[in-house]
Formats: sequence, structure tokens, C-alpha cells
Amino acid sequence: MLELAEDTRDDWADEALAHLDEILLDHAHCEKKAAGAALKLLFSYPDTLCLQEPLSRLAREELGHFEQILKVLRARGVAFKRQRPSPYGGRLHAHVRRDEPERLMDLLLVGALIEARSCERFRLLAAVLPDPALAQLYRGLLACEERHGDIYVDLCEGVAGEERARERLRELADAEAAILRERAPVVRLHT
Amino acid sequence: MLELAEDTRDDWADEALAHLDEILLDHAHCEKKAAGAALKLLFSYPDTLCLQEPLSRLAREELGHFEQILKVLRARGVAFKRQRPSPYGGRLHAHVRRDEPERLMDLLLVGALIEARSCERFRLLAAVLPDPALAQLYRGLLACEERHGDIYVDLCEGVAGEERARERLRELADAEAAILRERAPVVRLHT
Repeated sequence: MLELAEDTRDDWADEALAHLDEILLDHAHCEKKAAGAALKLLFSYPDTLCLQEPLSRLAREELGHFEQILKVLRARGVAFKRQRPSPYGGRLHAHVRRDEPERLMDLLLVGALIEARSCERFRLLAAVLPDPALAQLYRGLLACEERHGDIYVDLCEGVAGEERARERLRELADAEAAILRERAPVVRLHT
Repeated sequence: MLELAEDTRDDWADEALAHLDEILLDHAHCEKKAAGAALKLLFSYPDTLCLQEPLSRLAREELGHFEQILKVLRARGVAFKRQRPSPYGGRLHAHVRRDEPERLMDLLLVGALIEARSCERFRLLAAVLPDPALAQLYRGLLACEERHGDIYVDLCEGVAGEERARERLRELADAEAAILRERAPVVRLHT
């Protein structure tokens, strides 16, 4: 699994558990956004053949997870609806460079970092969830997120070479950790 | 199956067969665009709960088809790449009204018509394809497109009521047929 620059702070999981319905709603939105981001890459880079099949499969999986979390929400009587998002994704995307091929590199690595952080957070959540079925669901999902993180890094290495990809990944991982150190005004998967 | 205002002209299938690689490439783009359109609806209408699960499933299926056609292209040695699209989608979307709930109605019905026309074209194509495996693939896909067309109409009926949905569907079906009567300068699934 790709390395994050910093572990999540100790109190996040308890905070998430105390706002579980909000976290689940955010999670549904995050899965949809993850699918949207993968699809956006397919539309932005139609001539980059190596992206097409892996990111289409990845988007399909994210949509499948979106549907799984919609079911959890429905079972808990929580309506899926618009929600104030965490500033995390926007702050991270602000680090994406404008010129090519740096832009594509950064978009792939931002994708990798979001998947890796989600994976870490799902693990923390699974460890404290009192509902065994929900904990099991999260353990299943975190394995996918881990794989997705690796896919994004592999794609970036394919596009930019291993050394350049790994160097930029370290820079962006530092930026990602810095974003999480600034506490957000809401409790979300990525705050 | 929802009714199109006009059948496809007699010479389309032979024309398509004479430009099969171009048609297959267009088809791959169309599946990706169909997934993108469904996902865009999910992002535009996060508070319209009835759309979320059906359109997520539909987008997943379209992406699965995209991957299937990518495999066909690869087997034929055709590179997936950018391609000049048919004017069809853009022309059809120009009929979408701006205000709500008319906008959502029209977006759903445009989706329905594109799926229905794709279904009809796949049937025509399957009937002339000399490769039995490819003809079989198209027969499988056309059943999905038929179901997708019905899903879009059902969603529109749920949002706007059956009578309003059916009335607007007839108007847009006339517009769709008129667009296809204007011959495009390229051979595509929807020309």
C-alpha cells in the first residue's frame, strides 16, 4: 500500500462514530465523486489508451460502493441528500499543476492519495464500529480502496516513469497531510 | 420498448458495415458518454433520491459495455482514440428546456431516446454483421439499451407524471427523427 506522510489523528474514529450518519452520507458522496473523477480523466484524456480500461473498471467499482452505501443509509432511515463537503478534495486539487504531462501526473496521484487515505480511514472506522455487518462492509471496501490507490500510482508511473511519479507522490503526500492538520468545521471521512 | 417517431433509413446498416471500425470506435465513445450523462444527472440532482440507484446501476452497465467494445477494438487492432462525433447528441440536447422541472424531464427523455435509437441500430447492425461473435455481442447489448430506455422513461414518469412525460416524449421523438433526416458528414451509430 502506498505510504501516507502522516497517520490520522487519534480522535478521528471516535468523532466519526459520534457522527456516523453524517459520515455515511459523506461516504456515499465520496464514492460518487470518486467515480466522477475517474470518468472525468477518461473524457479529458481520450488518447491516453492505458487509462481507459483500468479507470472504467475503477469507476464501476466506485459506483457499486455508492449503491452499497445508499442501501446502508436507507436501512438506517437516512435520506441521501446534498451535504456540505469536506474542504479536503478541493484543497488537494489546488496542488494539481496546469501544464501537461504534470497535470495528468498530479491528477492520478491525487486520486491515489484520496484512495489511500480512504483506505486508512475505513480501517479505523471498521475497528470501532459496533455493528459487525457494517464493520465487515468497511473491511471489504478498504481492500478495494487499497487496490485503487495502487492502480492510480501504477498509471502515473506508466505515464511519467517510476522515479518522477514517486518523487511527486512524496510532495503531494506532504501536502495532503498538511491539509488534514487544519481542522475542518465539519466531521467527514476526510477531515 | 418506447416508440421512435421514425425507423432508420434502409441504407444505414450497409453504410455502417462499410465503416465498421469507425462505428465500433464511435460505439466505445457512446458507451462512455452514456455513463457520463447518467453520472452527470446524479451530480446535478443530488436531492432527487429516485434517480440515484437506477442511474448508478445504468452507468455501471454502460462502463461495462465500454470495456467490452475496447476489447473488440483491441482484437481488431484498432486504437481507441479521439474521434469526430456525430452531431446527433448535441442537436438533441439543444431541445432540453432550461427551467425545472422541465429540464430534468427533458434530460431523462433525451437519455431514453438515445438508448432506444441505439437499441434499434444495434438490431440492424447485428442482422448484417458477418462475424457471428460480434453479432451476438450486439444482440446482448441491444437488450440492455432497451431496458435503459425504459428506465429513463420510468424515471421521467416518476418525476413529472405519466401524461406529461409521454406527451413530451412524443415531441422529443419527432425532434430526434428530424435530426436523423439531416444527413451528417460522417458515418456513426447515430447518423
